[in-house]
Amino acid sequence: MRNKSDARDRILMTASRLFQRQGYHATGLNQIIAESDAPKGSLYYYFPNGKEELAVAAIKLTRDTIGDKIKRFLQKADDPVEAIQELVCATAREVEQPEKIIPCTISLLALETSLTSEALREACRDTYVAWGNAFTEKLTQSGYDQEEARELGALIQLMIDGALISSLTKKDTRPLLYVARQIPVLLQSGRTRRL
Amino acid sequence: MRNKSDARDRILMTASRLFQRQGYHATGLNQIIAESDAPKGSLYYYFPNGKEELAVAAIKLTRDTIGDKIKRFLQKADDPVEAIQELVCATAREVEQPEKIIPCTISLLALETSLTSEALREACRDTYVAWGNAFTEKLTQSGYDQEEARELGALIQLMIDGALISSLTKKDTRPLLYVARQIPVLLQSGRTRRL
Repeated sequence: MRNKSDARDRILMTASRLFQRQGYHATGLNQIIAESDAPKGSLYYYFPNGKEELAVAAIKLTRDTIGDKIKRFLQKADDPVEAIQELVCATAREVEQPEKIIPCTISLLALETSLTSEALREACRDTYVAWGNAFTEKLTQSGYDQEEARELGALIQLMIDGALISSLTKKDTRPLLYVARQIPVLLQSGRTRRL
Repeated sequence: MRNKSDARDRILMTASRLFQRQGYHATGLNQIIAESDAPKGSLYYYFPNGKEELAVAAIKLTRDTIGDKIKRFLQKADDPVEAIQELVCATAREVEQPEKIIPCTISLLALETSLTSEALREACRDTYVAWGNAFTEKLTQSGYDQEEARELGALIQLMIDGALISSLTKKDTRPLLYVARQIPVLLQSGRTRRL
């Protein structure tokens, strides 16, 4: 039997998927209730403040889901170049089946709401920071200088995001593969590296 | 006296701005008519097929406006590194006044529509390709191998776009400045360069 927290999870996963696909404005609460197969009233029970509160929680779910995926890939290899390239290539394989992919970017919500909702902008900002920090942590563990690792972590996050948007729009995995090829150049550049 | 083509231009510029700020779904034709101060009926006169046709034209306007800006910056210096860094730093200065900036990314529309409208997806794809090609052309003129220049052009486009989204969301110009700092590494990497 499905319990209450199960209903909350289904609402959140459905909201996360619909917000990413259609955007914040085009996604109505009725559609979320219908597609999550949740009991009527449960959406307002778990998210009494409505759509914005639900969207913040959905962004946090995507932050954690993708954050965990990034960390899982980064643990697969000691060499950060190899680990990050594996992650980017796996993302490229997912893009080939866009109907099936799990939420992988929050950029639609970020672009829609960064000027109009501080709560949503902050949730999106924290998500980009968290994903960037996962790369930064791997790089500091590999001996990179802290400051350098922070900059490279943010760069890798925004390159993957830009490539994801480009690949989805072009229906072509090459933008992601170009980023994968660039990772060694980025990480083995002439800068200070404490190994 | 305002003439007909002036009305068409105002409708297009207003649509371009609103689609970029609010997205495709949240922008209604009535708002575009009201904010462009266009005569009633002129929107359907110039865009008889409605919102999708107008959005395609608005994307093309942004493609050309930003495409011209990119080319103008690339002509400012012979050295592609210097020219591209100037462009990225100018974009960073614009981001500090997000309310005032002209439409500078079509990624909101791309993410909203890439799965639902082939006409809009193709207009967005052609825009990314056109912007990437502007960088590619500069690089081939500077002696880069054609294939290498094509890859680097696409990479520079997606890095600026990713950094723009990150900078707007973080209200912080550093993501764009990180990209500017990375340009010499990207262009002076160990690959073949025919100078």
